[in-house]
Amino acid sequence: MQRPFDTEIAKLKETLLLMAGTAETAVQNAVRALAERDDALAKKVRADDDILDRLEMKVDEEAINLLAMAPLATDLRTVAVAMKISHDLERVGDEATAIAKRVLELNREPQLKEYVDIPRLARLSTTLLRASLDAFVHQRPDEARLIIPTDDEVDQLHKNLNRELTELMEHDKTNIRRCLNLMVIIKRLERVADHGTNIAEDVVYLHEADDIRHADRAQ
Amino acid sequence: MQRPFDTEIAKLKETLLLMAGTAETAVQNAVRALAERDDALAKKVRADDDILDRLEMKVDEEAINLLAMAPLATDLRTVAVAMKISHDLERVGDEATAIAKRVLELNREPQLKEYVDIPRLARLSTTLLRASLDAFVHQRPDEARLIIPTDDEVDQLHKNLNRELTELMEHDKTNIRRCLNLMVIIKRLERVADHGTNIAEDVVYLHEADDIRHADRAQ
Repeated sequence: MQRPFDTEIAKLKETLLLMAGTAETAVQNAVRALAERDDALAKKVRADDDILDRLEMKVDEEAINLLAMAPLATDLRTVAVAMKISHDLERVGDEATAIAKRVLELNREPQLKEYVDIPRLARLSTTLLRASLDAFVHQRPDEARLIIPTDDEVDQLHKNLNRELTELMEHDKTNIRRCLNLMVIIKRLERVADHGTNIAEDVVYLHEADDIRHADRAQ
Repeated sequence: MQRPFDTEIAKLKETLLLMAGTAETAVQNAVRALAERDDALAKKVRADDDILDRLEMKVDEEAINLLAMAPLATDLRTVAVAMKISHDLERVGDEATAIAKRVLELNREPQLKEYVDIPRLARLSTTLLRASLDAFVHQRPDEARLIIPTDDEVDQLHKNLNRELTELMEHDKTNIRRCLNLMVIIKRLERVADHGTNIAEDVVYLHEADDIRHADRAQ
């Protein structure tokens, strides 16, 4: 049954989908700029970040207005979760911007090595993000639950990459600055997955009122 | 004039103050564990993190209940901001836990150098956090505005420390692993200040409906 408030919630979800698409593209472009040594693309990522900043403010404003007229507790919860999600998506934009900044530094020096695992890490992280948001939009807590373990895969890949970069630094000190930049990049990609996980956990929380946000969350 | 809803808001603020105190202590203990090479204290920081996790869930639950009965738009806004603040405070606990983890690794090797600037960075960051929360509790957007520039000071100190650690790595490769651990620690301290800045900006937003969150925020 369609209730009048459903239209408002749907509009809010649409803005979140736009944010998610923008955030995902930003991360993909930042990693493409790394792989293809493309300064212009890295600069575009940086310049586009204010789109997400503005969308987050828009969501907050819409959400506050909705809260004032929400008829049911379940709507309140959805709106509150939407505000949290928009914050996570805005942060994904910040991660992309930070990656772009390091790409610009890396592009001034010879390439350290062929990047294979970094694009893979980026793919895992953005897939997690996208699946979490889909689970929110389509109200699928089961799918949100299914996607959460991907974060462990991301953590493991990040850990392996980190070890590899540490060894490259110890092997040759002329690698140090490039490895540090790459370490920041992979850390930021790992955090994109964290934001996706936050969203997935919020979806589970929202639908099952079963707060698993902090269960099994190891630092 | 005291309205019935004021009591509920005051209770929510009290929980946030408890969270802030817990988060601040966690960061201070983590840095003290570093300076004094105290494994037991580092482990305590890690173990205590679930206190903040539980408090965040409590704030969310209280906030959702309050939203359902908030009489005025300004109350809705306060409650929504309280949820955001509790999330930032919970994250501060995560930063402290991450620091504690690195401290335990560092304590297994000889001390790299006397730490002077790291405790100073920690002091600046926790002061910013504390002042931001006070500004929220006492409804002082002017004080929130005043504290925000401290974040630039933190960023500058973090940058200097980062440069110093990079040089130590390049100077002697046996320093690399210890420097990497210290780099993670100072990055986490810098993020504590970011959480404080988020809170300060939310306070300004709340009281002046003037969203400066993303103005002058350089990556």
